[in-house]
Amino acid sequence: MMDEARLGAEVKMLNPAAWEIVDRLAAHPVPKGVSVCTLDGGTRVIDCGVNAAGGLVTGVEFARACLGGLADVEIVPWRLGDLPLLACRVVTDHPLASCIGSQYAGWKIEKGKFFAMGSGPARAAAAVEPLYQKYPIRVRAKQVVLLLEASALPGAEVAAEVAQRCGVEPQDLMLLVAATGSPVGSVQIAARSVETALHKLMELGFDLHQVRSGVGLCPIAPVIGDALKAIGRTNDAVLYGSEVHLVVDAEDDQLADLAPRVPSSASRDYGKLFHDLFKQYGDFYKIDPMLFSPASVSIANTRSGRVFHAGKLSPDLLRKSFGC
Amino acid sequence: MMDEARLGAEVKMLNPAAWEIVDRLAAHPVPKGVSVCTLDGGTRVIDCGVNAAGGLVTGVEFARACLGGLADVEIVPWRLGDLPLLACRVVTDHPLASCIGSQYAGWKIEKGKFFAMGSGPARAAAAVEPLYQKYPIRVRAKQVVLLLEASALPGAEVAAEVAQRCGVEPQDLMLLVAATGSPVGSVQIAARSVETALHKLMELGFDLHQVRSGVGLCPIAPVIGDALKAIGRTNDAVLYGSEVHLVVDAEDDQLADLAPRVPSSASRDYGKLFHDLFKQYGDFYKIDPMLFSPASVSIANTRSGRVFHAGKLSPDLLRKSFGC
Amino acid sequence: MMDEARLGAEVKMLNPAAWEIVDRLAAHPVPKGVSVCTLDGGTRVIDCGVNAAGGLVTGVEFARACLGGLADVEIVPWRLGDLPLLACRVVTDHPLASCIGSQYAGWKIEKGKFFAMGSGPARAAAAVEPLYQKYPIRVRAKQVVLLLEASALPGAEVAAEVAQRCGVEPQDLMLLVAATGSPVGSVQIAARSVETALHKLMELGFDLHQVRSGVGLCPIAPVIGDALKAIGRTNDAVLYGSEVHLVVDAEDDQLADLAPRVPSSASRDYGKLFHDLFKQYGDFYKIDPMLFSPASVSIANTRSGRVFHAGKLSPDLLRKSFGC
Repeated sequence: MMDEARLGAEVKMLNPAAWEIVDRLAAHPVPKGVSVCTLDGGTRVIDCGVNAAGGLVTGVEFARACLGGLADVEIVPWRLGDLPLLACRVVTDHPLASCIGSQYAGWKIEKGKFFAMGSGPARAAAAVEPLYQKYPIRVRAKQVVLLLEASALPGAEVAAEVAQRCGVEPQDLMLLVAATGSPVGSVQIAARSVETALHKLMELGFDLHQVRSGVGLCPIAPVIGDALKAIGRTNDAVLYGSEVHLVVDAEDDQLADLAPRVPSSASRDYGKLFHDLFKQYGDFYKIDPMLFSPASVSIANTRSGRVFHAGKLSPDLLRKSFGC
Repeated sequence: MMDEARLGAEVKMLNPAAWEIVDRLAAHPVPKGVSVCTLDGGTRVIDCGVNAAGGLVTGVEFARACLGGLADVEIVPWRLGDLPLLACRVVTDHPLASCIGSQYAGWKIEKGKFFAMGSGPARAAAAVEPLYQKYPIRVRAKQVVLLLEASALPGAEVAAEVAQRCGVEPQDLMLLVAATGSPVGSVQIAARSVETALHKLMELGFDLHQVRSGVGLCPIAPVIGDALKAIGRTNDAVLYGSEVHLVVDAEDDQLADLAPRVPSSASRDYGKLFHDLFKQYGDFYKIDPMLFSPASVSIANTRSGRVFHAGKLSPDLLRKSFGC
Repeated sequence: MMDEARLGAEVKMLNPAAWEIVDRLAAHPVPKGVSVCTLDGGTRVIDCGVNAAGGLVTGVEFARACLGGLADVEIVPWRLGDLPLLACRVVTDHPLASCIGSQYAGWKIEKGKFFAMGSGPARAAAAVEPLYQKYPIRVRAKQVVLLLEASALPGAEVAAEVAQRCGVEPQDLMLLVAATGSPVGSVQIAARSVETALHKLMELGFDLHQVRSGVGLCPIAPVIGDALKAIGRTNDAVLYGSEVHLVVDAEDDQLADLAPRVPSSASRDYGKLFHDLFKQYGDFYKIDPMLFSPASVSIANTRSGRVFHAGKLSPDLLRKSFGC
């Protein structure tokens, strides 16, 4: 079982580390394909993929900031059978702090016409989501970073409200924005393999204190401008193409029961493309929430030495989703 | 379409970034297996694989300098079927600036008995090649780096002429040299997968402004001393063993027509080892120029979301070429 | 043949580089999952996996220190057939200095009840092992780092003796400790693929000066608490799952004779799990020493251009060993 002192030290690192990554990105915006503007109030908005072009490597920096600097992220070529893909690799010894405390896109930002799901370490400062009651991953920070998956840029009112919720002045907030259907969008979602596994485990009632390390690999969905199609592909990449390895400290009985329920294949909706499911149900929230998980999950239990594996990759579904 | 301001910012970074990489290499020559000498006039020549032994990791640093610091380069084990290989992975968000503006070996350096093809960011300062008319990738620099694939070291006269063409004093030029048949030579050529794809696209009339990112993987040919055999193997590695992923912003019609013509398999000379072709034609320039391209090319079009793939890897030809 | 000046420069780097890596680890112990205590006399002991939890990424830092900073180490997902694994990748241009001069676990540390095999660059300062007579890899250092695979932490008497043997004061020694059956233990052993190949070559009488570069990939054995089982799995990972690529400068005749004898499959004991062999013989030292080698070894000879490959990976044995 993880000790709380370690978790506390980790969450304290999230915002400063993300701030440093983003500050460096914002210092050289032009070659990185991003554009920076300062809102009234002083919040810097870094457009990484709304009007700006971004890039795959810029997506890696976005993802590292989103994980609060507590995970390594890389782009690697990956062959699934004879299907040549690009994939995003994530490695972390801090899965609860970086993936759940920071990366999970769980903060709904709504203000006037602006809507986006917020992710990144500012969430741990605002702590408006129930999961911050569940785990001691709330943290005060002098400067905070929030990352938005959105097709429009936020204005000063959005920034003011986010800053206020985080307990900082607007000039101590940086907002990064990328559309789902942009290179940065595709990469930062492909960086969510471990996060998705952890979230599913949490939904299944597993105590995430028990997860010590996580490593994931997930195809980077080819960029497509249409937002709904982009959401479809990036989800399919996780559901049908990602594999995750977790190192946990738990009871075998619990894992024997749990493991087969973790991968996407445990869902009744497995086997259909996300875009088709969305059309079928007509509503995102009618899709089985148990579907949202990596295709393949290996759980190595340090307490017993046993390895639990479930699920499998589906190159055919990926091929259909990506049109390749 | 890429904006010119971004391209301009990228090319300005090439020489300073390469200078920094090479300066660091030259500061610790002995453990890196390189030797440094200073010519009359002050040019430093870094022998990375003529008389010096170099190494695979030194080859990575050579390749990074050659790409003007604008690409990540790594050595990775890679299995093609049951053939265990080493490969070189390249990832860049700056393909036109780094691969064409800098890495392409397009500058013929001839002076007395010395002959070599020059690559690296000094090319962008000299801009003697026609492609610098075609793209706005010419740039002035205070200090420049040129990398030479050669079996002999250049003297002060070569350095003086290169410096003069680049508009710098000889002491503001560094020359790195490695033979094709050396560890550094093998690695730096294996780092040319994306560059080779871009050059082929340029030959086919595609506007390289439209290429946003590139990722490539190419086997590192086992080192062989004989220069001609080394040229053969390193070419075979690209032609029959490399795979490239490009992210572009273009029209589908154009890509549908273009994609099948990009990989090496589109050439009439595909399927023969480079060394055999050279013997058959008796002249490098009679080999079909359309052969020089990666074995497998995937082009993801961000404008439409479509992916175009053509070509395939040929482990059998690699096995024959490498004798393994 | 490697020149002695290069080897001399490399070994001088081992302890300072390791000290820097460990000093940084010790500066932020809590999020890294390590704990630091200072013994009477001033030696710092960094517990990375005895009572401390450590982690996979902490294991990478342990391994980098163990290699004296002269090798890159990474964790990568790796599929062997349909078996999803994690693996440790090692790349070095300094195989003799980093793997034999530093990483090899050849120094027996015995004091009272404490027993452990010591590895890391302090070995090169103490030079108590015969191989330091064989190769000029002995080096004086102001500060030294020793890494211990042990289930208990060493006390001040152990530290005093180690320091004295290394010719330093106790406060100029740092000791890192991890049990075999810990995340750090599993990773640091998986980082020994190249070292194991080199040691086998040395046993076969090959002059290691001739090895210029090494690249290896080895599965990270799932952590298991029982020490004997952990030793079994981590050995099986090397014997049946690791592949190594070496670049050498030698005579083909010698390599043609040598190569088939290098991989683990050349041993009479090949094909049985380490734990079963240990039970069968009842004594570690009765197991065929020729077994201890990677499963697959490729040797590329720069002198001739020939590649010698022997051995193969055995996913079925790994599956049996890891119980997955």
